[in-house]
Amino acid sequence: MNESLNNRLEGALPITSADEAASVVDNGMTVAISGFGSVGYPKAVPPALDSHESLTILSAGSVGGEIDETLVKSGTINRRAHFQSRPAIRDAINAGEVAFFDRHVSQFGDELRFGGDLDVDIAIIEAVAAGEEWFIPSTSIGHAPSIAQAADRLVLEVNHAQPVALEAIHDIYERASPPHREPIPIDGPIDRISDARIEFDPDALKAVVETDTADDPYTFRTPTSADQAIAANLGSFLESEIRSNSIFSSIVSLQFGVGSLGNALMGALTEIEFGDRTVVYFGEVFQDGLLDMLDSGRLAGASATSLALSNAGQERFFAEIDQYAKNVVLRPADLSNNPALIERFGVIGVNSAIEIDCYGNANATHIGGTHMISGIGGGGDFVRNSRLSIIALPSTAADGAVSRIVPMTPHVDHTEHDVSVVVTEHGIADLRGCSPRERATKIIAIADPTFRNDLKTYHDRATEGGGQTPHDLETVFDWHIEWSR
Amino acid sequence: MNESLNNRLEGALPITSADEAASVVDNGMTVAISGFGSVGYPKAVPPALDSHESLTILSAGSVGGEIDETLVKSGTINRRAHFQSRPAIRDAINAGEVAFFDRHVSQFGDELRFGGDLDVDIAIIEAVAAGEEWFIPSTSIGHAPSIAQAADRLVLEVNHAQPVALEAIHDIYERASPPHREPIPIDGPIDRISDARIEFDPDALKAVVETDTADDPYTFRTPTSADQAIAANLGSFLESEIRSNSIFSSIVSLQFGVGSLGNALMGALTEIEFGDRTVVYFGEVFQDGLLDMLDSGRLAGASATSLALSNAGQERFFAEIDQYAKNVVLRPADLSNNPALIERFGVIGVNSAIEIDCYGNANATHIGGTHMISGIGGGGDFVRNSRLSIIALPSTAADGAVSRIVPMTPHVDHTEHDVSVVVTEHGIADLRGCSPRERATKIIAIADPTFRNDLKTYHDRATEGGGQTPHDLETVFDWHIEWSR
Repeated sequence: MNESLNNRLEGALPITSADEAASVVDNGMTVAISGFGSVGYPKAVPPALDSHESLTILSAGSVGGEIDETLVKSGTINRRAHFQSRPAIRDAINAGEVAFFDRHVSQFGDELRFGGDLDVDIAIIEAVAAGEEWFIPSTSIGHAPSIAQAADRLVLEVNHAQPVALEAIHDIYERASPPHREPIPIDGPIDRISDARIEFDPDALKAVVETDTADDPYTFRTPTSADQAIAANLGSFLESEIRSNSIFSSIVSLQFGVGSLGNALMGALTEIEFGDRTVVYFGEVFQDGLLDMLDSGRLAGASATSLALSNAGQERFFAEIDQYAKNVVLRPADLSNNPALIERFGVIGVNSAIEIDCYGNANATHIGGTHMISGIGGGGDFVRNSRLSIIALPSTAADGAVSRIVPMTPHVDHTEHDVSVVVTEHGIADLRGCSPRERATKIIAIADPTFRNDLKTYHDRATEGGGQTPHDLETVFDWHIEWSR
Repeated sequence: MNESLNNRLEGALPITSADEAASVVDNGMTVAISGFGSVGYPKAVPPALDSHESLTILSAGSVGGEIDETLVKSGTINRRAHFQSRPAIRDAINAGEVAFFDRHVSQFGDELRFGGDLDVDIAIIEAVAAGEEWFIPSTSIGHAPSIAQAADRLVLEVNHAQPVALEAIHDIYERASPPHREPIPIDGPIDRISDARIEFDPDALKAVVETDTADDPYTFRTPTSADQAIAANLGSFLESEIRSNSIFSSIVSLQFGVGSLGNALMGALTEIEFGDRTVVYFGEVFQDGLLDMLDSGRLAGASATSLALSNAGQERFFAEIDQYAKNVVLRPADLSNNPALIERFGVIGVNSAIEIDCYGNANATHIGGTHMISGIGGGGDFVRNSRLSIIALPSTAADGAVSRIVPMTPHVDHTEHDVSVVVTEHGIADLRGCSPRERATKIIAIADPTFRNDLKTYHDRATEGGGQTPHDLETVFDWHIEWSR
């Protein structure tokens, strides 16, 4: 064992090969794995499960192809929750071959620990260092503390390709269980209250596998012209809102959803005039778009549960990790997405959707109302609990052939009760205080011009039938039916 | 001023008639009033506004006919939020004559204070006693503290028909504003942390009107056979769940939704075997159904924001109010419905809906997807944040002609991500850990037998198209279209 290994492994650990570790898993078991934002997932033991059968695989966020491609092709995965982002698993889910369900990120850790529904047999977690009763997670935390508690057996992968210096980023605070659960003792978005170690019952530790493989993280597309126009509209709106609303007079806490649009919007923050306000990020993923803001000192800090950076972003972050550790905090997903913290800090949440209806109900998960993309993830935590909840989306999809503003969404993830503002490349619809009929006028006005008349015709026809939220159920899905042909 | 008046009014107060107080309100103003669960609303000043025009009327919960009948007939109300329960206002909303919007109870107080959307001009609040800088609210609290803070002008109605002893019930804790908002320092569902007084800026107090009129509260129907069967199914499920789930081993915190079914389910709690567990209620309304449980000592206490009792229930409660004050607490609605408290206490939430789809999405507000009943109220707070979230509903409506379990609900208030268990008179569907396709099988099994085959046929046909959540959009609303004819 060389010096670098000594730094990572402490005490008498059951070091094994990935194959030996895989033998700890029995067919039919429920296996919870680390990973969020496609980073920090175990890379060696899962592929070694490819001859297993009927496994339930649970993760807090998206993980790599070692799980959601390899184990799909081998037919190993029987059930999956609660977020995924690889084509192989997506296709298997939509074909009905894998039973999938998605819950809110903030709640899934609790569900695993005491939901009464899912009994976690084994946890497989990537770490940067481990001892006999503790480990330090790697590039994401997610529900690692919860699954380490909930599982009967624990397998750790200590990954030498991930910097041990991640220790300085992590803040692992574990809450007591209901009904005697204490309030979370954090005063601000980037406060630290604990250290980097997750503790576990030493009897549960069955195997420690050493690996040396980088994450296979997200790639982000170059911002489109629509992304840029959305960013500009959002910027104007935010500048106006923070000037007029007193609770944003000293601190502005922002969150952006996962993905290329969210990343582009983060990147465009540099264009916004925040005055002398302290700007912080309180979200679930730290993406490339925040690096410039942090480097320039304009962003005072960031709290997340995953360093969901691209390869280039990881390289940049790891090169200056000690510097970034001063103002970047990774927390368990129960805290990064906690409803009470989002509410207490008065977060401005900016999230996206596949489509939104003309009344403010959004579909963030199901193409055509039927086919799953990834899952709701933490979107619902922020859309629901933010002081100001914004849905940002391009007005069209499929090169302009499909309107993302529709009469009714055939699946609803965020309801009209939660969405306050909608932004497209054509403008802003501020829905606050508006009835559904008023919202329709505002939302249709920021639809793609090609579709505005048809939307207005629909809404006028629907309104003849009266009601708080007018609809003509005979024609409400005409577009979706046409687009699916 | 007699002795009883002296007990209620302290200091130099601007005592006026209702008409004089009404003159404090200008046409076009935004008027926030007290009231929740059809009790504790101002009864004299609102009817005196009947020659005003274009008022926005805001309340935390439902209020009396003095507002939602009188001021509708006079054409005074232009805009209304965020909950109502009288036919006159409902009809005006659905006709598009009154612009209505509904938000979550837990969040509406904050929206009024710093939402940036609604600027409250005047607050009219019913109190049982008042001084120059404080008042004590009456039978409901709702958002009285928030609207007293948010309004530029304040009018109080001191109601001699409401017992001053309500003081002993109230616990008014006001939180700091984001971004420096503290965690709520309550350790358990029925803890007290403050007193009964709401303080206000004395310059804002424009009028104090004395009244002597009882509330016009809810009436509850006699439980139907379906209600009783639902209660029995729920009881069996709860007994099994609290035995098997360790977080319910010492304390069981329950919440039930507003209305006759909720009241009937509360009443049926006496039949449930809770063993030696402490049973408490943590909800938004305290209804008649809890009185027996409290009287017998089986219920250790209750927290709510409204004494939404019937006339008979009020009489019973007021007769022993000092006794009830020992274990009944009324809180501001921001606290009674607070997501963090619901989560920390591990509440079991039981709420109802108009209809639910075969995947677990529920419509709680819109008949036919278009016509508003009352509003989402606090249902979303509890469905979303409860440790165990149960939707209880009869399987049919309209004397069995209409199925409440449908292929798709044309409005969604509670999403599939939030609902864990569905109960009808035909059984329990435990959806935890299930994919939508699996949920469909379970939910269809507890539909009314008359509709089960049609639901299964729909689901089978939809499944031919594949997807995580199969649907046939061409026929998905066939039932709703037929029922609306």
